[in-house]
Amino acid sequence: MNNETLGILFAPKSIAIVGASNKKGKIGTVLADNIIKLGYKGKVYFVNPSYGMIGLRKCYATLEEIPKEVDLAILAIPAKFVLETIEKSANKVKNFVIISAGFSETGASGKKLEDKINQLARSKKLNILGPNCLGFIAPTVKLNASFAGGMPAVGNIAFVSQSGALAVALMDKAKKENLAFSKIVSIGNKMQISESQLIEYLGNDERTKVIGMYLEGIKDGEAFLKAASKVSMKKPIVILKAGKTAKTLLAIASHTGAMAGSDEITSVAFEKAGVIRANDLDEFLNLLKLISNCDSPKSSLCGVITNAGGAGVLATDAFKDKNLVLADISAAARKKLKKILPAESSIENPIDLLGDAQEDRYQDVLEILHKEKIENIFCLLTPQGQTRVEQIAITAMTFSRKRDINIIPVFIGGEKIAKALRGFATEGLVNFATPETAISSLEKYRIWQLFADNSAKVSNLKLDDSRRRQSQAIITKAISEKRKALSFADSAKIMELYGIGAVAHATVTDENIDNLKLGFPLALKVDSDLILHKTDQGGLRLGIKNEEELQEAFGEMQKSFPGEMIIAQAQVDKFAEIILGIKRDPIFGPVIVYGLGGIYTEIFKLVNFLLTPMNLKEIEAQILKSKINFLFKGARGQAVCNSKELAKILFGLMYFAQENPQVNEFDINPLFIYNNGQDACAVDIKIIF
Amino acid sequence: MNNETLGILFAPKSIAIVGASNKKGKIGTVLADNIIKLGYKGKVYFVNPSYGMIGLRKCYATLEEIPKEVDLAILAIPAKFVLETIEKSANKVKNFVIISAGFSETGASGKKLEDKINQLARSKKLNILGPNCLGFIAPTVKLNASFAGGMPAVGNIAFVSQSGALAVALMDKAKKENLAFSKIVSIGNKMQISESQLIEYLGNDERTKVIGMYLEGIKDGEAFLKAASKVSMKKPIVILKAGKTAKTLLAIASHTGAMAGSDEITSVAFEKAGVIRANDLDEFLNLLKLISNCDSPKSSLCGVITNAGGAGVLATDAFKDKNLVLADISAAARKKLKKILPAESSIENPIDLLGDAQEDRYQDVLEILHKEKIENIFCLLTPQGQTRVEQIAITAMTFSRKRDINIIPVFIGGEKIAKALRGFATEGLVNFATPETAISSLEKYRIWQLFADNSAKVSNLKLDDSRRRQSQAIITKAISEKRKALSFADSAKIMELYGIGAVAHATVTDENIDNLKLGFPLALKVDSDLILHKTDQGGLRLGIKNEEELQEAFGEMQKSFPGEMIIAQAQVDKFAEIILGIKRDPIFGPVIVYGLGGIYTEIFKLVNFLLTPMNLKEIEAQILKSKINFLFKGARGQAVCNSKELAKILFGLMYFAQENPQVNEFDINPLFIYNNGQDACAVDIKIIF
Repeated sequence: MNNETLGILFAPKSIAIVGASNKKGKIGTVLADNIIKLGYKGKVYFVNPSYGMIGLRKCYATLEEIPKEVDLAILAIPAKFVLETIEKSANKVKNFVIISAGFSETGASGKKLEDKINQLARSKKLNILGPNCLGFIAPTVKLNASFAGGMPAVGNIAFVSQSGALAVALMDKAKKENLAFSKIVSIGNKMQISESQLIEYLGNDERTKVIGMYLEGIKDGEAFLKAASKVSMKKPIVILKAGKTAKTLLAIASHTGAMAGSDEITSVAFEKAGVIRANDLDEFLNLLKLISNCDSPKSSLCGVITNAGGAGVLATDAFKDKNLVLADISAAARKKLKKILPAESSIENPIDLLGDAQEDRYQDVLEILHKEKIENIFCLLTPQGQTRVEQIAITAMTFSRKRDINIIPVFIGGEKIAKALRGFATEGLVNFATPETAISSLEKYRIWQLFADNSAKVSNLKLDDSRRRQSQAIITKAISEKRKALSFADSAKIMELYGIGAVAHATVTDENIDNLKLGFPLALKVDSDLILHKTDQGGLRLGIKNEEELQEAFGEMQKSFPGEMIIAQAQVDKFAEIILGIKRDPIFGPVIVYGLGGIYTEIFKLVNFLLTPMNLKEIEAQILKSKINFLFKGARGQAVCNSKELAKILFGLMYFAQENPQVNEFDINPLFIYNNGQDACAVDIKIIF
Repeated sequence: MNNETLGILFAPKSIAIVGASNKKGKIGTVLADNIIKLGYKGKVYFVNPSYGMIGLRKCYATLEEIPKEVDLAILAIPAKFVLETIEKSANKVKNFVIISAGFSETGASGKKLEDKINQLARSKKLNILGPNCLGFIAPTVKLNASFAGGMPAVGNIAFVSQSGALAVALMDKAKKENLAFSKIVSIGNKMQISESQLIEYLGNDERTKVIGMYLEGIKDGEAFLKAASKVSMKKPIVILKAGKTAKTLLAIASHTGAMAGSDEITSVAFEKAGVIRANDLDEFLNLLKLISNCDSPKSSLCGVITNAGGAGVLATDAFKDKNLVLADISAAARKKLKKILPAESSIENPIDLLGDAQEDRYQDVLEILHKEKIENIFCLLTPQGQTRVEQIAITAMTFSRKRDINIIPVFIGGEKIAKALRGFATEGLVNFATPETAISSLEKYRIWQLFADNSAKVSNLKLDDSRRRQSQAIITKAISEKRKALSFADSAKIMELYGIGAVAHATVTDENIDNLKLGFPLALKVDSDLILHKTDQGGLRLGIKNEEELQEAFGEMQKSFPGEMIIAQAQVDKFAEIILGIKRDPIFGPVIVYGLGGIYTEIFKLVNFLLTPMNLKEIEAQILKSKINFLFKGARGQAVCNSKELAKILFGLMYFAQENPQVNEFDINPLFIYNNGQDACAVDIKIIF
């Protein structure tokens, strides 16, 4: 599968409808009608062994019988016939859409059938959309290859949906909201063509400005991250991703059988890949509407003009904690504003033109803000007694047409603004019903722009074979000794390979106990994979101050834990405790976890996630905006900890996770870090396989 | 002013329009037209010295000339004539609406004029709405006493707005959204009739089911809390309160000159008073729509039925972290569901009826959920090929009409659902465009119901005169000694009066140093209002272990701080550090602040606010849901601290704040609290006046 052949699937010159029919209510009938009656200009062939003719058109018994080339075959036949149909025609036809349901979504036997088809697709180099999908619509070629009715307006939104019914509802809503599409694709079971392939394909599709997706699961985390990161550099991807709660996971499983994965990690992945996550259906539609019609905000500066103080006040509130700011107005511009506006007007941004404002005031102020280089202007209006709503709308439209800035109207009302709204729609201006939605939508667009601006992205990890062999040797040995976890000494050796230092330590024996060279105070621990709760069982002694206490503690521990290894650790000062871990996500692979350790770990839950791969610079940037960034930003004028050092440690863990896939559970708890130049050190390390 | 006379203002039998006119574009003309032409049945008199007649109606030169009673006079005349007009007629007319602008919103001289009118109102027992307002509309008596056009539908929403323009916009929007009103009131400068008076009045208004307010400021925090707490017990108050950022405060100041106050404390006040805070304009409208039409949710159990799996999935996500839950379906109901639904349907809640579902499936499942005692049912629909949208709508409406449950339709689409939506509107069913908004709106309604259910509310603090005198005596003495703050010893004495214990301590002198009776270790401190940063300047010595060290430290401190008092404190173990304070809010008065103390204070900002008055039970409930509740809920199986003890301390602080109004700044930092039965104790107390 590649972009070129997918291009043929979505814009075929000839189509065969397998299962075409003329019986009312049959999917084959709806499909045939949609393809033939809505303006598609290519060749269409019907295939159905039960008919000789359908209407005035010949009906073939099989795909192979068709004497001409067939770019795309759409299958609306019972599941049990699908494999055979594709097998027989695979030398003739390369692109398929399987509308039919009855595959992996139904359970094991359906899954088996689907797997066979998938295998066939690979061996015969076929492109297959579905199964269990609605089909697709390509308004640019007037092709509705789906059993949803109608032909949406041609535009620049590509909409991909894992729910056919939701796609239908949104298409219906889209008409009302003036959304226009380059493609609408229902992906069904995503057997072969999933979100990742479509992101890549639509990324190269010149008719598509924004990709909008409703997803219940992500099929392959690595492929998704790769495709989305690349495409996000040039066009925004907006995803409404379901699966925020355990109950949702159940609902998804019973709906599409997808695996939704951890919601928090999904968010981290989206952020890493520059994907805009829509929090709900409303926001999803608002974002598509805005991005489809507006230029990407090159700057965060915004202006607000209004004929209603209250609306301006609400807009100001909406900028709270946003990546957008109300621009300061220069002294020169203030002077001009003072001249043209009545004395009671506010010439601070939001600029309140007062209730009797007409198009001239809007026009003049737009000019002034434009000269201030404010590129995003929210144009608020409430339809008051004297307000000439349409004239003001025309002013906004004319102004926006002539100049390279975003005018975002927020006309608030009903009947009185209806005509103006229709005008905006034909002009490609997007009216928002409230200032808050307008501003929060633009902010997400702006955050995407910031991602696209920052070009240093995604570095592959170059795995190190020699290091891998060394760490594997240690692990393999432990496994051969039937240990379930590594000893601290072994763990420390491996960590050293990855650039992570452990606290000074030594295995204590009757021989070396007089000469540990660790100084005092020190801690004594049983170093066993069997003794999980050392503290409870007397397997940990802290604050040993001298040789005498050491001898005594060692003796006791030997008695309590006969045969177990016992280690001594230098007991170092602490400044801040960090907890580190690796979580193997079923979708996105190894995820590095880091957060605040110590007694507050479970109370404050200051935990952060990093997806691999990342480079050092990216990791450091993440640390500096993480939930523990206060350690690196100097609260209360305190000296700060070294974010570069922690970044190196996390970077090392990424390699460790990749090079040692058999490590099931891993954590360092605590890692001590310092703000006085002292090196970080791991005090406890757990490596379990 | 009282409810009865306000009743006359809002439903007058006779109205005089002062400043009535027939010149196009004049407010007096619009007003006269609105009152006369939109169906008002009472007497109307015109007053304007420039006219003998307006149209066919006599025009009086002054209010006094009118030979009959006048229930309400509406003034649309220049500001400078307002005072005189009211003065002269105050014996005849008791209710006024001042439309005119040019008062406190314009600055000092306007404020002076407004104050005079206010004084007059008080002395003559007048009710005055405004000035600088749009007027009001009372659809129930077909009275539009405003210069906004039209007559909204009669309904149960009372809408009060501090922005006239926003009221106009919302009225226009309301028509489209089928919102219907009992009253619409523009409050302008709120000289006399402010939100609090209206809350009380509308609380008793039988035509009003829900009070919706747009506010930029709150005039009198105490009055507001009192009125809102009382009214919230019987009907919901929804407030869209602006003022979330510093910039907003500026915008508000330039718009209505209101003082917006601290946003966080506003939220605390709303919660205390059971007010539903709408976060934005959209949510505000959605809440009014829902509450106007639906029964208050008596239970948190919800059901979701859908013909689109994807929509059900989104709904499930929307329940995340909500005060509403997806009800579990009983085994018996599951069995029934299995019988009537196709095999592929999901019989878990959300119940997926599948894409080919028609009205019979909706009907059957509604019956089953109703028998399950699920009182809130979200009825999701996407208009798929075969979906009989209108029939399903009728089923939902019929069902809802016959049964005492909330059916909340969420039909997603555009044209294809338009007819169904019109049906819902006439039937009082509220369709939401997306499941997320439906669910979050119902949740806020539910939270209000929980408030109303819980009847133990608002206790007045019974101030204690003897205690007040004792603490005042200490403070007065310190002031007379020209001190700026109390010594620790004095502070501790006052705290004891309010039931707050301090750590054991003694003032150290050459005489008593051998006999402090505090034990060791102890801490030595300079106890001076001038030495603010004791630690930096050597004014604090911790960990004094014996007599010898004590003597030495005392000697040094005497040398460094000659003439200053020096105290010793027992150095006690600590478990958790709490910080306590009092913030005097310009709107809501003394606010008790409490949070996590110690090194994490500024990092985690776990700060909570309590408004006075509250009773002990309420305070304890607040502690248990505060940001430091982990101390009282036993994380990791630890013993918990005593929430009752902290509640008593906070309760004491409420009295302290009320009885000692001249205390400007107060904090206890830290207060040690324990989980082992040990008493809490204040280690440092700052009382500054």
